[in-house]
Amino acid sequence: MAGPAAVSPLALALPALPPLAGVKLGVAAAGVRYQGRSDLLFAEFAPATTVAGVFTRNRCPGAPVEWCRKRLPAGRARGLVVNAGNANVFTGRAGSDAARMTAEAAAKLIGCPARQVFLASTGVIGEILPVARLTAALPAIHADLGADRLADAARAIMTTDTFPKAATRTARIGGEEVRITGIAKGSGMIAPDMATMLCFIFTDAKIPAPALQKCLTRGIGGSFNAITVDSDTSTSDTVLLFATGQARHQPVPATGGAILRAFSTALAAVLHDLALQVVRDGEGAQKLIRIDVTGAVSARSAKRIARAIADSPLVKTAIAGEDANWGRIVMAVGKAGEPADRDRLAIAIGGVWMARDGAVVPGYDESPVIAHMRGREIAITVDLGLGRGKATMWTCDLTHGYIDINGSYRS
Amino acid sequence: MAGPAAVSPLALALPALPPLAGVKLGVAAAGVRYQGRSDLLFAEFAPATTVAGVFTRNRCPGAPVEWCRKRLPAGRARGLVVNAGNANVFTGRAGSDAARMTAEAAAKLIGCPARQVFLASTGVIGEILPVARLTAALPAIHADLGADRLADAARAIMTTDTFPKAATRTARIGGEEVRITGIAKGSGMIAPDMATMLCFIFTDAKIPAPALQKCLTRGIGGSFNAITVDSDTSTSDTVLLFATGQARHQPVPATGGAILRAFSTALAAVLHDLALQVVRDGEGAQKLIRIDVTGAVSARSAKRIARAIADSPLVKTAIAGEDANWGRIVMAVGKAGEPADRDRLAIAIGGVWMARDGAVVPGYDESPVIAHMRGREIAITVDLGLGRGKATMWTCDLTHGYIDINGSYRS
Repeated sequence: MAGPAAVSPLALALPALPPLAGVKLGVAAAGVRYQGRSDLLFAEFAPATTVAGVFTRNRCPGAPVEWCRKRLPAGRARGLVVNAGNANVFTGRAGSDAARMTAEAAAKLIGCPARQVFLASTGVIGEILPVARLTAALPAIHADLGADRLADAARAIMTTDTFPKAATRTARIGGEEVRITGIAKGSGMIAPDMATMLCFIFTDAKIPAPALQKCLTRGIGGSFNAITVDSDTSTSDTVLLFATGQARHQPVPATGGAILRAFSTALAAVLHDLALQVVRDGEGAQKLIRIDVTGAVSARSAKRIARAIADSPLVKTAIAGEDANWGRIVMAVGKAGEPADRDRLAIAIGGVWMARDGAVVPGYDESPVIAHMRGREIAITVDLGLGRGKATMWTCDLTHGYIDINGSYRS
Repeated sequence: MAGPAAVSPLALALPALPPLAGVKLGVAAAGVRYQGRSDLLFAEFAPATTVAGVFTRNRCPGAPVEWCRKRLPAGRARGLVVNAGNANVFTGRAGSDAARMTAEAAAKLIGCPARQVFLASTGVIGEILPVARLTAALPAIHADLGADRLADAARAIMTTDTFPKAATRTARIGGEEVRITGIAKGSGMIAPDMATMLCFIFTDAKIPAPALQKCLTRGIGGSFNAITVDSDTSTSDTVLLFATGQARHQPVPATGGAILRAFSTALAAVLHDLALQVVRDGEGAQKLIRIDVTGAVSARSAKRIARAIADSPLVKTAIAGEDANWGRIVMAVGKAGEPADRDRLAIAIGGVWMARDGAVVPGYDESPVIAHMRGREIAITVDLGLGRGKATMWTCDLTHGYIDINGSYRS
């Protein structure tokens, strides 16, 4: 690994994370790859906990992703084991054996079937996971599980992250308050397609798995599927949502419905908060960039254009250099391959319209834009002038820090 | 501009460039943007010169691209004016006026219709082209045109290029030798889609425009459409091929055919040579990377997978760091969204197969791969094991130099 990177200038402080009924956690330093820090998370959930999940669309997923996908339809979870430092991806039979052995060891301690233990791994691809170190560490963690370890859990799943990420909200279901708390890790290989890096959400609500899945899927679009750091889609992206059912609200039907409106909104807020924290910790990030595209022919088209801008190395390096180079935004709009008419296109940075109707705005004064570019949060707006399609994406700038981190990740 | 970058370590020397019958050239320092170097190229072609071209697919093309597209169907060219430093893109009515005025000024000097003058501009987007500087410089250039200025021409069209790019070949048409010489410039915003940055090819062959276009289109697939530096598609990509008709070979039919087989092959070689020079001068490039994908379900699928690898920042930074991180290649294959079966996938670097059948090759010895990674030319081979589709792409690594150049391009 490269030397420890400085904490991102965009970092947020961890919020207070109250315990969640039905969730007990513990961490350990299993020495999978890192020395002198925790790298293993073990969580046990109350009986009857339901689970929902979304995973990477990468065609070469890791063994833990395959394990979870296969177990998700049953909708039941009693445990979660996550390790950092080794992704257990492209490890063949040894990889699926390692996943199974980890689940079995955890299940034995909990007293449940292995199929109710969910798994995630993050780190280097293609190296055999030293599974014995994981299974050897689990009994001691299990003997000391506690409800107050959410911050420790957020730290244990970090890889190149420079700060731990968590978010929490409350919502009411039929008048009764429930809590939703999530943790996540980034921070490179981030261009989620249906899911993202690792994110685990816990709630004490009692929600049937199909309704839970519906809420989760709905929340992903505006959060983890609306961010990109480097256009690279991980093989391990996993979001899992566990509902322990300890809250005493009225029953929720399997199809969900209006009773979950507030829950669904709060969950979306937790997901959105975590997704933006991932971008804030994008490798080498110095600036958080919000890209709003309006006036496209459809929402799908708007999203593709927003993604083309967000993934453009030339746009991202210009922003790193605090250069309001809107010509590169024009280029990125044009390269998206979506309907665009140069002569109707308008571009604003920091709320200042600089280009409109196919040319620079007459009398355009760059000075407020220059001031905006010097800040930590950059806002780009593109209006296509063609229709009502709109989308928002978040990304970060592309800096020397990204090259430093990724030119020496394995060494 | 950032200070002058050191010449790329992958640079090639300019070849000897013999004059071409029917092509007279001149350059000048018009001061469009750069000081103390030539930035304007003016070429005059013999009467009856035919022309073929391919242009960017970017939806926001520059005024010169629009000018050329409109004039290309007539197939006739008498002049070419190219400036570096200002791309004349997203400049509205002023931009199309500037293009027309440039063509008119050149046409007056040549004594031809303005529609037979072709144009290209490269440089900053969104700034009004100082057209008076161009038109003022043209008469002096025209008074001193010469046949021996191809190397000067290659230098005059450079922007962030660190070395001039040219290639030349001969071929026989019906027993008679003809020559094909091209010049090109790169070196960022390179992910051509049907065309590339600026490239001008001259030949003394006498070939009807439709046949000429056929040869050019055929040659682009394996050259400018098989390279990428940073996945960003320029708004100005232009390849123009001029045939002056001065060679005394037998007539070529409008449809081309077998008589052009050798010409077509030589043209493809010139295009390929120039395209690789563009990659060799990719912004910040330290290594030239060749990616061969085989065993895909189709050639199209293979090309998409090759492009996903070539455009992956994580693959490119790993290579910059001389790290044989094949896990990132697995990731890039998987993110392409094309049919791929992890358990049939095989990956080689420098000819050494390191991953096969969904796992690392047993007993894999990394040392020859490490030695290969230290070299200037890196070869990646991916076999999907699914079908017969194959494709090759070339790219370069992603280094601090790219960030340096693009974080301060306008300043």
